Amino acid sequence: MTDSPTIAVLGGTGDLGGGLAWQLAQAGYTVIIGSRALEKAETAAAALAERAGKHVRGLANPDAAAAADLVIMTVPFASHKPTLESVRAAVQGKIFVDATVPLVPPKVMRVQMPQGGSAARESQDLLGENVRVVSAFQNVAADHLNADDAYLDQCDVLVCGNDPEARETVVRLSEELGMCAWHAGPVDNAAVAESLTSVLIFMNKRYKFPGAGIKIMAGKAA
Amino acid sequence: MTDSPTIAVLGGTGDLGGGLAWQLAQAGYTVIIGSRALEKAETAAAALAERAGKHVRGLANPDAAAAADLVIMTVPFASHKPTLESVRAAVQGKIFVDATVPLVPPKVMRVQMPQGGSAARESQDLLGENVRVVSAFQNVAADHLNADDAYLDQCDVLVCGNDPEARETVVRLSEELGMCAWHAGPVDNAAVAESLTSVLIFMNKRYKFPGAGIKIMAGKAA
Repeated sequence: MTDSPTIAVLGGTGDLGGGLAWQLAQAGYTVIIGSRALEKAETAAAALAERAGKHVRGLANPDAAAAADLVIMTVPFASHKPTLESVRAAVQGKIFVDATVPLVPPKVMRVQMPQGGSAARESQDLLGENVRVVSAFQNVAADHLNADDAYLDQCDVLVCGNDPEARETVVRLSEELGMCAWHAGPVDNAAVAESLTSVLIFMNKRYKFPGAGIKIMAGKAA
Repeated sequence: MTDSPTIAVLGGTGDLGGGLAWQLAQAGYTVIIGSRALEKAETAAAALAERAGKHVRGLANPDAAAAADLVIMTVPFASHKPTLESVRAAVQGKIFVDATVPLVPPKVMRVQMPQGGSAARESQDLLGENVRVVSAFQNVAADHLNADDAYLDQCDVLVCGNDPEARETVVRLSEELGMCAWHAGPVDNAAVAESLTSVLIFMNKRYKFPGAGIKIMAGKAA
């Protein structure tokens, strides 16, 4: 990106959102932490500001979305639909990155996809065609995102969305943060990354992996 | 496996099934090619027999399933349900490996998962609890499976199923064929590998990859 946009992380008080906010702040972006509760957003923003050594704002989700050029959302799936509704007006015309993983506790190691096929598809349907929904970041281990050092070569990012230019923006953003990212097709293909997280959690338990991920292989010409 | 079982490949006349049959024959297994049409099965079996330099039988799907210790199925998704119904009786008590990818032509680069969540889950529901359904092999490029040389290190195999012992059998079988295979959870988790194929086809086109695949990464301890 030529100008460094202001990025809101809705659900930035959680593990995945907090890790993304930390990486974005380190990479020089102006970051806003969004949360349902203003107070929680402000507390998380203050902690991140101290860690990153720069100003970070904390706002309620709709205000965070309104103040940002690009919005990233990662909330517990139970909060997915209400959060979308709360920011619907504020994200019109913007790129909206859905990093929400549709886990259904307590069985988080079992794939249980939403009715619409994927959380990102539900976002696109609910937010409307004037919002460029892109799905990304569901598979990166939160521990890796929250670490001081760069662990971000451990998992590739599958970037899905119906608008190839918006996808390209998110691919480049991921690369700036040190992740290898790939165009992975239309928004319906978000089902892959969203469902994969349950498999990775299963493997972390089964194989005692510190934070399983995937790498894309090009294959060989036969 | 201690005894080398007889393995039927239903849909063994197709690219993926034919490639699996070729790898199994090379690894020393007794292979039966199954098809809806006996004649097509016999023709494919004769071709494989000549290539592998050993006897290969071709049978109609229900007879192939009945004659085998372990059954692998990979058919076009439109034939999934009728093929299951045709072999239901013959596979009772056996391990049934579903390698079917639920692509919906012409949009094969777009994830379009079946009502039941995955083809493998539909198999488990239709075949009943006396059949140990395991899902595997959906992501390995058919060109790699059909090659003379070993290209099978280019894609890991996610092995899903509700019976851990049956999964282990398929993990070991995959490893004997030269693939790196992983326990990936219950049969519902087959949605990951089944949907991933559309993303890999998309990437093959977008990035001109010869045969995209995935590798599982363990991650690093933070």
